Amino acid sequence: MNAFAPSTRQSARHKRRSQRATNTDTKTGFVPGTLIQSEFKPLSDAQLEKIHRAALDLLENLGMANATSRVADVALECGCTLTSENRLLFPAPLVEDLLANASRTFVVHGRMPELDFEARSGLLNFCTGGAAISILDMTERVYRSSTLKDLFDLARLCDTLENIQWFTRPIVATDIENLFELDVNTIYACAAGTRKHIATSITSGENLYRIQPMLDMLAGGEGKFAERPFCTVHSTNVVSPMSFAPDSLDVACAAVDIGMPIHSQTGPQAGATAPAALAGTLVQGCAESLASLSIINMLNPGHPVILGNWLMVSDLRTGAFSGGGPEQALLGAASGQLSAYYGIPGGVGAGMSDSKLPDSQAGFEKALSVALAALAGGGFVYESAGMLGSLLGCSFESMIIDDEMLSYIRRIARGIEVNDETLSVSVVKDSATGPGHFLGHNQTLELMESEYGYPETADRKTPADWQSSGATDIGQRACEKVRHILDTYYPQHIDSEIDSLIRNCYPIRLEPTDLQGERN
Amino acid sequence: MNAFAPSTRQSARHKRRSQRATNTDTKTGFVPGTLIQSEFKPLSDAQLEKIHRAALDLLENLGMANATSRVADVALECGCTLTSENRLLFPAPLVEDLLANASRTFVVHGRMPELDFEARSGLLNFCTGGAAISILDMTERVYRSSTLKDLFDLARLCDTLENIQWFTRPIVATDIENLFELDVNTIYACAAGTRKHIATSITSGENLYRIQPMLDMLAGGEGKFAERPFCTVHSTNVVSPMSFAPDSLDVACAAVDIGMPIHSQTGPQAGATAPAALAGTLVQGCAESLASLSIINMLNPGHPVILGNWLMVSDLRTGAFSGGGPEQALLGAASGQLSAYYGIPGGVGAGMSDSKLPDSQAGFEKALSVALAALAGGGFVYESAGMLGSLLGCSFESMIIDDEMLSYIRRIARGIEVNDETLSVSVVKDSATGPGHFLGHNQTLELMESEYGYPETADRKTPADWQSSGATDIGQRACEKVRHILDTYYPQHIDSEIDSLIRNCYPIRLEPTDLQGERN
Repeated sequence: MNAFAPSTRQSARHKRRSQRATNTDTKTGFVPGTLIQSEFKPLSDAQLEKIHRAALDLLENLGMANATSRVADVALECGCTLTSENRLLFPAPLVEDLLANASRTFVVHGRMPELDFEARSGLLNFCTGGAAISILDMTERVYRSSTLKDLFDLARLCDTLENIQWFTRPIVATDIENLFELDVNTIYACAAGTRKHIATSITSGENLYRIQPMLDMLAGGEGKFAERPFCTVHSTNVVSPMSFAPDSLDVACAAVDIGMPIHSQTGPQAGATAPAALAGTLVQGCAESLASLSIINMLNPGHPVILGNWLMVSDLRTGAFSGGGPEQALLGAASGQLSAYYGIPGGVGAGMSDSKLPDSQAGFEKALSVALAALAGGGFVYESAGMLGSLLGCSFESMIIDDEMLSYIRRIARGIEVNDETLSVSVVKDSATGPGHFLGHNQTLELMESEYGYPETADRKTPADWQSSGATDIGQRACEKVRHILDTYYPQHIDSEIDSLIRNCYPIRLEPTDLQGERN
Repeated sequence: MNAFAPSTRQSARHKRRSQRATNTDTKTGFVPGTLIQSEFKPLSDAQLEKIHRAALDLLENLGMANATSRVADVALECGCTLTSENRLLFPAPLVEDLLANASRTFVVHGRMPELDFEARSGLLNFCTGGAAISILDMTERVYRSSTLKDLFDLARLCDTLENIQWFTRPIVATDIENLFELDVNTIYACAAGTRKHIATSITSGENLYRIQPMLDMLAGGEGKFAERPFCTVHSTNVVSPMSFAPDSLDVACAAVDIGMPIHSQTGPQAGATAPAALAGTLVQGCAESLASLSIINMLNPGHPVILGNWLMVSDLRTGAFSGGGPEQALLGAASGQLSAYYGIPGGVGAGMSDSKLPDSQAGFEKALSVALAALAGGGFVYESAGMLGSLLGCSFESMIIDDEMLSYIRRIARGIEVNDETLSVSVVKDSATGPGHFLGHNQTLELMESEYGYPETADRKTPADWQSSGATDIGQRACEKVRHILDTYYPQHIDSEIDSLIRNCYPIRLEPTDLQGERN
């Protein structure tokens, strides 16, 4: 499989490092997604149909501005028209036809098959995400600019977290100015840190073509990336309201050309770039998402696309984006529900707390938005761990805490199994007329691991035990975990020969010693 | 209306205190409940029906142990039978008949009509609750025993919190040993601190009869309490599995006699006093709740009862109660859904975090369990604010933080309004072809207050502004609010003449000076 067979010669130092990685008690965490059994449905089917119809109205009669010539050409060929103001109009039957034939399920590839999973609505997978420009120093309570090294650290941290299936770069490496170098090094740092599916945005279509050979190298040889595309591009093809983003359209076109899955995003902001009425933001986001989905499916019918209908909220007192409020939670859930209604894998941003610290505010804001988006059934929830400060900041500690929260939400999504056995009528009769308790009952022992989870960072001690063991909060415990993982977990996810090949062709900023923790 | 007209003579000191109370910028917070528009339904109707049928099976064939003679007599008269082991069997048609005729809606009275609201499934109201024996000192991170003074302080704190409609005593006054004095002073401290509907458990039926005159005094004269019963009794009539609690049955009978509404509770603990299978715990809790509901309705058809089907969870590693996990959130939601299915006002305990501090764990555990219980539609969510340490502790700061969280959940419960206007098609067309943004649009200005909420304790500052204003977490901000409210808000909710009357008849422990903050 691997065209670049890894060297069998390893330096003593390399061996030591490998040992250090395998000796650690940190698990390499990956547990596949959760079938959603218990659902949150903020909208009725009739309401969803109304929203869909209104979106079709916008596409047919208002259309999208700023299509690139490649996109306009293929769209006109398929039946779109252009207004005198150069707005691309999408006839409703065309959109419905493209929607009916869009990909409903596809494989999301990790770098190894054990990390593959399915993309489809109704199957919940949690993803990181964000493009924060700063990292929280929790102890000092200050934010500092985020770097490439932070990105690598976040990737290897998330490589150990069981409830995160997909790693989208949560931060921007602000220490790289050149955009091509930024794109290259972002992908490299993600791939070096985790073998889970990775994703990022790319600054131009041209850059994506130039990066394709590196993706092939990482996948094991020429043409291998398209066979198992382990990287998705986040392409925000829309500038709200109702306009295409030409640069992003170029990226989406390049992704189609190289066989890369697309998380096709729009991000209308209620009250700023979309109506203040939540239903109106839903309609506009739906229209914008369908426009992108249509274009990609015109270019390549059935291309793997996640419908990234990310509806955002403004604090209307200031006009600034605010990600933590209940309106945001409602919009995220409604977006997920809309994707499920279409039967298309849907992606939603959630967990975008406005708090600057992983405090109780972050806890309840994240829980509300992530849980409701997840239970609504779109399939993919992004920004689901680590983000703070309305997406401006990221926190290692928050990653750990949020991963625990995600484990809770996954259990909730599995719902309550109801059948003759679980109804337990005879179990109750036995125990009520017998011992009067259920602790020793066979059913209890059998269900101990399947029906119940046991938190790792969350605390269940008695007040006295908690007191005597240091009276810590979850932030302090997360802090210790972060330190332990980052000190010990250097997973060596890029074979050294492949690494040399890549370094020969691309301006890789992370040193081999960085990957092995030599500097720590 | 008031048989004990308040004195017009007030001491200068009293006037000064009153002024202090009214001059404060603290609002006396009460906003009526929320109609649930966006629903979380973990179970299908077919599953609910199965659970109901299995519960009827238990009631008909296993029945309840330990009925008191008064209860057994009325039950046998209505068609129940007694087994040779003295278990009271409830024929399914009898239970269904009683259920069909149980009260579906009634008024929950405050001490003044402005604080009244309706009890019914589908109308969300948040309540405090708990019987914690300790209070968190957040700064020192220690728990100390809770006192009567703490209860009064919690009552007046909650009197100011808008999202809490009902005050059940969250703590036990551990400084009172005598049970009658405990009951009397618990009710007195609650009534002194808030005019919202109050509730507590009572240790015996006899105590409740002895307290009735005090309730009448507080209500304005003899017979007045039964006209506007401002206090509900939490009566845990069941010892799981499937046995009555005789003392509590006596309390429920006394409540029926004096016209006091009953929150009729059961608290089976999955894996300990109920099956480990969540569905089985639901079945048993349902059977136990229906047994209590049936008995009360036999005693007084249509008596105001809240179906308190509180399903708890054990950590199966230790057998100890654990209130913060996802299984608990699922059970709370399922219980709420079951009440809604019956169309009976239902009460659920939620927000019972296992964390000992108002940290991120408390935030996400509370948000998950409270939101899902609320959105499932039972109507009443108890323990919804202030509780920590698996109900062993209570925190003033947590009350403030959780009240903010409740405001989010209430907004979510209101859902998304979908109609021709909110779909906003013409608004999008206007803005996309016009200014390109929506900030100045009429719709935005109109919806600013109705569609969006603005948090008070949660933070939305930019990282820079947050930094320069002290880099606080929500716990610190809550701490300041607590201090301000407790220092300034002495609401004088018991008229001085009534107070004297009560003090003549009952061993009231709070001094008049305590009520006026003289000691602060």
